[in-house]
Amino acid sequence: MKVNEMMDKDFIVVSPDDNLVEVSILMEKKLRFTTPVVDDQKRLVGWITSLDVTRGFREGMKKVKEVMYAKEDIVAVNEDDPARLAVLEASEYKVFNIPVINDDDVVVGVVRTFDIVKTLSSLYEIKVYKIFEAMEEELKGVTWEELMEASAIVTRRRTGKRVTAQDYEKRIRESTFGEAIWATGGLEKFFVGLIAIGELVIARKVAQARK
Amino acid sequence: MKVNEMMDKDFIVVSPDDNLVEVSILMEKKLRFTTPVVDDQKRLVGWITSLDVTRGFREGMKKVKEVMYAKEDIVAVNEDDPARLAVLEASEYKVFNIPVINDDDVVVGVVRTFDIVKTLSSLYEIKVYKIFEAMEEELKGVTWEELMEASAIVTRRRTGKRVTAQDYEKRIRESTFGEAIWATGGLEKFFVGLIAIGELVIARKVAQARK
Repeated sequence: MKVNEMMDKDFIVVSPDDNLVEVSILMEKKLRFTTPVVDDQKRLVGWITSLDVTRGFREGMKKVKEVMYAKEDIVAVNEDDPARLAVLEASEYKVFNIPVINDDDVVVGVVRTFDIVKTLSSLYEIKVYKIFEAMEEELKGVTWEELMEASAIVTRRRTGKRVTAQDYEKRIRESTFGEAIWATGGLEKFFVGLIAIGELVIARKVAQARK
Repeated sequence: MKVNEMMDKDFIVVSPDDNLVEVSILMEKKLRFTTPVVDDQKRLVGWITSLDVTRGFREGMKKVKEVMYAKEDIVAVNEDDPARLAVLEASEYKVFNIPVINDDDVVVGVVRTFDIVKTLSSLYEIKVYKIFEAMEEELKGVTWEELMEASAIVTRRRTGKRVTAQDYEKRIRESTFGEAIWATGGLEKFFVGLIAIGELVIARKVAQARK
């Protein structure tokens, strides 16, 4: 996924000579806490936040250029950068919004952290049973029932709890991968469980074939 | 993971009767675009954003209560809620910050979306070879070399590219699970590849045992 698939395209831009009062009205109306500042070619030249505006108001400043951050002092990403880059930058620099530019430095969007959260959620919020469907598809000759039975056996061995194949199926139909990861406390543990299930189901298949 | 493990504890609060100018200075100094409004028991009564402050300044308002959102109009989470809930709310309501309260309605923190992004990244940014280490550990009797060899074979079959076990090992030592998911385009596809590897390595083990 690229940055341009995750960015807000309904962004606003302001110019260095824009009047601060008018800019504040625009930002409030569009609910934008931060806004790219561009030149007359729409190229990125700076960045303004609503906290700069409140300071500007208090200190009697009139124009965007009096309160804006210079381009050198902000983080930006290119529209063709991998989306992960914006994720890592938001996380590292603790910024809520990142301007997106093209190869000509023209501002083409803004990546907002709540959009990142949404994208990350949707990537990881797939239902666990989808993973089992993929597993069934891959393990030719293994039925869904065999997979659920093996899963229940592995779960009983690991947790000591009485879990039937039906219980297990119900659980994976309700829970998401995200929940499973948060619940098991990490990716490796989740995988280890899956691998154990895969191993058991293959072992049972091999044993049956030998009968 | 619970909300209180992911929240900002170095938050600020303001009171409904606080002076808007003083509040703006505090918000700028602490770089907070939004702030919980609390009563004298520190209980949540509202929410203020820097965009409310700019509007307040323009319209000659003097106090927080003149511009704040009422408690009923904002989203909040409890400190004991699962962290996932804050993730889902940020994503659904498109908010950058969510106040965190305890059972007495007292504000105990603020969840910020860049902290969510950081947490999600760290959960998923584990190196892919860690998953293979877990796989090796789980598949008793399978060596690391056998696992890499099986992985290279599966990769050659699927991509048609000439990949050696050494190439494969280098790749998984460098890349993270997050990258793998973004690159393969989804969790299921990533899993299917892993399952194919597990199946092949077990088949080879079984074949060897029969010799």
